[in-house]
Amino acid sequence: MPRTLRVAAAQMGPNQRADSREAILARMLALLEGAAREGAQLVVYPELAFTTFFPRWLIEGAELDAYFERAMPNPAVQPLFDRARALRIGFQVGYAELTPEGQRFNSAITTGPDGAILAKYRKVHLPGSVEPRPGDRFQQLEKRYFEYGDGGFQAFRGPAAWGAPVMGMLICNDRRWPEAWRVYGLQGVELMVMGYNSAAYDPNGGRTEDSAIRTFHSTLAAQANAYMNATWAVSVAKAGDEDGSGLIGGSCIIDPNGMIVAQAKTLGDEVLVAEIDLDLCRQGKEKMFNFAAHRRPEHYRRIVDQVGAEPPA
Amino acid sequence: MPRTLRVAAAQMGPNQRADSREAILARMLALLEGAAREGAQLVVYPELAFTTFFPRWLIEGAELDAYFERAMPNPAVQPLFDRARALRIGFQVGYAELTPEGQRFNSAITTGPDGAILAKYRKVHLPGSVEPRPGDRFQQLEKRYFEYGDGGFQAFRGPAAWGAPVMGMLICNDRRWPEAWRVYGLQGVELMVMGYNSAAYDPNGGRTEDSAIRTFHSTLAAQANAYMNATWAVSVAKAGDEDGSGLIGGSCIIDPNGMIVAQAKTLGDEVLVAEIDLDLCRQGKEKMFNFAAHRRPEHYRRIVDQVGAEPPA
Repeated sequence: MPRTLRVAAAQMGPNQRADSREAILARMLALLEGAAREGAQLVVYPELAFTTFFPRWLIEGAELDAYFERAMPNPAVQPLFDRARALRIGFQVGYAELTPEGQRFNSAITTGPDGAILAKYRKVHLPGSVEPRPGDRFQQLEKRYFEYGDGGFQAFRGPAAWGAPVMGMLICNDRRWPEAWRVYGLQGVELMVMGYNSAAYDPNGGRTEDSAIRTFHSTLAAQANAYMNATWAVSVAKAGDEDGSGLIGGSCIIDPNGMIVAQAKTLGDEVLVAEIDLDLCRQGKEKMFNFAAHRRPEHYRRIVDQVGAEPPA
Repeated sequence: MPRTLRVAAAQMGPNQRADSREAILARMLALLEGAAREGAQLVVYPELAFTTFFPRWLIEGAELDAYFERAMPNPAVQPLFDRARALRIGFQVGYAELTPEGQRFNSAITTGPDGAILAKYRKVHLPGSVEPRPGDRFQQLEKRYFEYGDGGFQAFRGPAAWGAPVMGMLICNDRRWPEAWRVYGLQGVELMVMGYNSAAYDPNGGRTEDSAIRTFHSTLAAQANAYMNATWAVSVAKAGDEDGSGLIGGSCIIDPNGMIVAQAKTLGDEVLVAEIDLDLCRQGKEKMFNFAAHRRPEHYRRIVDQVGAEPPA
């Protein structure tokens, strides 16, 4: 029985701070309809898809709280859940999570075709800083606004209608960390879904990196980690000029050889759809990356025994 | 004080079984002279550079032993050591090591400008099988002929004349394993040197992968792991049709952004030279891949606690 699945990357253009929640959700619904017209069964949205990327500002109190979801779903996002269920489409979406206990995480969920949440993931690799950088126009305050994800990297099974893939979620900066991919790889991941908001250039006017190299880094990390773990990957941007700060695009669907099968051409709302054959993961998993045959964990101890780099004398 | 170094990738064409040791060494010396003419201070040769890739055959006894070096250096390779020292050039070279105790490893050494051996590395990720695959014309018997490297991944300092880079060695299949790179990354590696003999296509006539995709995999793994560890990398092939079995080329020098600064155009003997600025590693090491700030080893336990993949139910 073929294990095939039609997946969509729903790249989003910028969400301006002034945009209403309704306007943003309407765009997300339009992307869903576009994906549905192409037969998609699973739609992958970006990180923090419902709002602007607010960690670029030092804010607090009610202004900060307004960016967080106290439940998922909730009335503001319910139309997306309802329409997806009606279309029998699952989706992955990122959002800022505020728990009943007051904890805050940069989170993502994946729903199944029945609208139920299959799994939740809380971002482990938070970039940025706790304290703002003096004098900078834009900050990266994820370490201030979120706790580190407390659930690790838990793979889960997609539904039988999708071929029961072993799935994993990552969020933005996570995709640059081979440890995260490998932990999923060690659970046999066949389909990685992830969203991002990545600066297109130094948002404070520096010019050490431009949007071309930052897009290259994003794509390179996804391609190589997909290859080295023999998994499909769907990597989805919120892109464009968001409140004066540029975000890269380059959303892509990547096969288990690390090859790009579809990639966004714009910095706006754009749907990419591909039919993926989960059994294409087998070549890598059974041969080159047959972990049981070839890994040597006795030589990997530093990966867990130390955090920072310790150069030789 | 600038920390710059001129490095050379000395790609080799095939070493046929019938080629004499002297003929192969003469080619290696010619590559050394070519690198010297371009001012190289360090020359990187391939894996098992002195012989054909003998693990493709089931052999034993004296026939097998003839491919192994009982000491390094030894009279057969001494001219390379002598000429390199005279030129004040260091080199990395791979060879089959037979210890006085009778242990066999797929090894590499790096020498300094004074001709002394700076470090030895024994390949950890041996591909292939112990027993031959019945009916196949060509085998991959590294697991039969070699023991797993017993020294792990020990970074070492290059000499002051090179800017005292933190260096690491990998051999062939190792370069596809992010764990190996990360263990060096956790020692602050700034320059990774490695050689390979990688099949250009299924040597037994299968067509699941061709030379284009195998070269893509080789380059992709080196680029992304260089980026994710913010290190320079020099990755060097033995290439071409060797005793009827094809080997990919694609030798390259890669910067800490994962970008290729030089890549081989042929499948034969070819020298690539680049001047590398070791301080270009700092951007990645201090920001995106500031390990002390951003790694979360508490979520990486599977990497050392299990060997093979364990999919969810």
